Amino acid sequence: MLVEKNIREFIEVLASKEPVPGGGGAAALAGAIGNALGSMVGNLTVGKEKYKDVEQEIIKILEEEKKLQEELLSLIDEDAQVFSEVAKAYKLPKNTDEEKRKKEEALNNALKNACQVPIKIMEKSLEALKLQRRLAEIGSKLAISDVGVGALILKAAVLSGYLNVIINLNGIKDEEFVKKTNEYTEKMCREAEKLADEAYKIVMEKLKG
Amino acid sequence: MLVEKNIREFIEVLASKEPVPGGGGAAALAGAIGNALGSMVGNLTVGKEKYKDVEQEIIKILEEEKKLQEELLSLIDEDAQVFSEVAKAYKLPKNTDEEKRKKEEALNNALKNACQVPIKIMEKSLEALKLQRRLAEIGSKLAISDVGVGALILKAAVLSGYLNVIINLNGIKDEEFVKKTNEYTEKMCREAEKLADEAYKIVMEKLKG
Repeated sequence: MLVEKNIREFIEVLASKEPVPGGGGAAALAGAIGNALGSMVGNLTVGKEKYKDVEQEIIKILEEEKKLQEELLSLIDEDAQVFSEVAKAYKLPKNTDEEKRKKEEALNNALKNACQVPIKIMEKSLEALKLQRRLAEIGSKLAISDVGVGALILKAAVLSGYLNVIINLNGIKDEEFVKKTNEYTEKMCREAEKLADEAYKIVMEKLKG
Repeated sequence: MLVEKNIREFIEVLASKEPVPGGGGAAALAGAIGNALGSMVGNLTVGKEKYKDVEQEIIKILEEEKKLQEELLSLIDEDAQVFSEVAKAYKLPKNTDEEKRKKEEALNNALKNACQVPIKIMEKSLEALKLQRRLAEIGSKLAISDVGVGALILKAAVLSGYLNVIINLNGIKDEEFVKKTNEYTEKMCREAEKLADEAYKIVMEKLKG
């Protein structure tokens, strides 16, 4: 499992020409890092007299982030798995018409399946970004730079997931599926940019004000 | 050492209220991830007949990225170390005028020192981003989405480093130092945004065109 590798090993295999981890795994890890910074800020805020009024809300945020953390970590390895299926389909023979038809079908299915992982990376990172946006308002001011870092990295995670969706969509021959998936994921990108920019603005005001 | 922790452990301790790793270590790791994706793209490009003309340039890029990888990984632990020094200075007593003076001096020095790590994170991530910008033009088109992911994450790393610089600068009583550091690091942010946006544009054209 990729998540059991230590940081140095993970970076080394990412840097190599090994097929996995690649951009998808990197996006999922970025999502996990940004989300973890939200948890850190939450954990530094609860139990503090100054933030008693928002304690219950932050406890709820922490619970959601704990779930997101597990999901984003799992997606690092899920991405590697679906990528292997795509690679397998690419290697199928295409000498006869029958083989060509079978290969195209296998490839189409593997790519559609492979799309789902970066879509999930986008969804989970976007959820984490919504929580981060709220933490910019109610989290401990002592950790305000960490909220900002989390928001920046989560935005990168959502947009990175999108690039991985697009490269898979390019190989899929199903116009309706491609159109719908494109619209859905583009919308998530715009939402992520809006949330991250709002969070960043609040962070900078608190940092510089 | 933080880089010896496995991915899951690192994310768990990042999410906790433990003082380190925090936003600085997260920024350095983001830089290492983005830079590693550049190496991956380089490694997938060299040796390919189609990219023979740029092979020598890519070999040079790979050498630079290898150095940057070591530096960015080291910065994860360096950030933790300077942060401990700051925490130590904050805990100094301030009962007498003499103690107050000594504490302010110790804090000023620790914070100036702590600034240097996120500045280095910014510098190294910016260098990696310049290489990524070039890989958008000359790297293997098969890995073009990975170039884009690398650029997005490296931009986040530079801007995240900046937030860590600012939060340290806020505690430093040395107007000249604060002004100079602010100008220098703000300039790096603008450059990172420009490079990443250019790289992203090239990536999208190649992905969608």
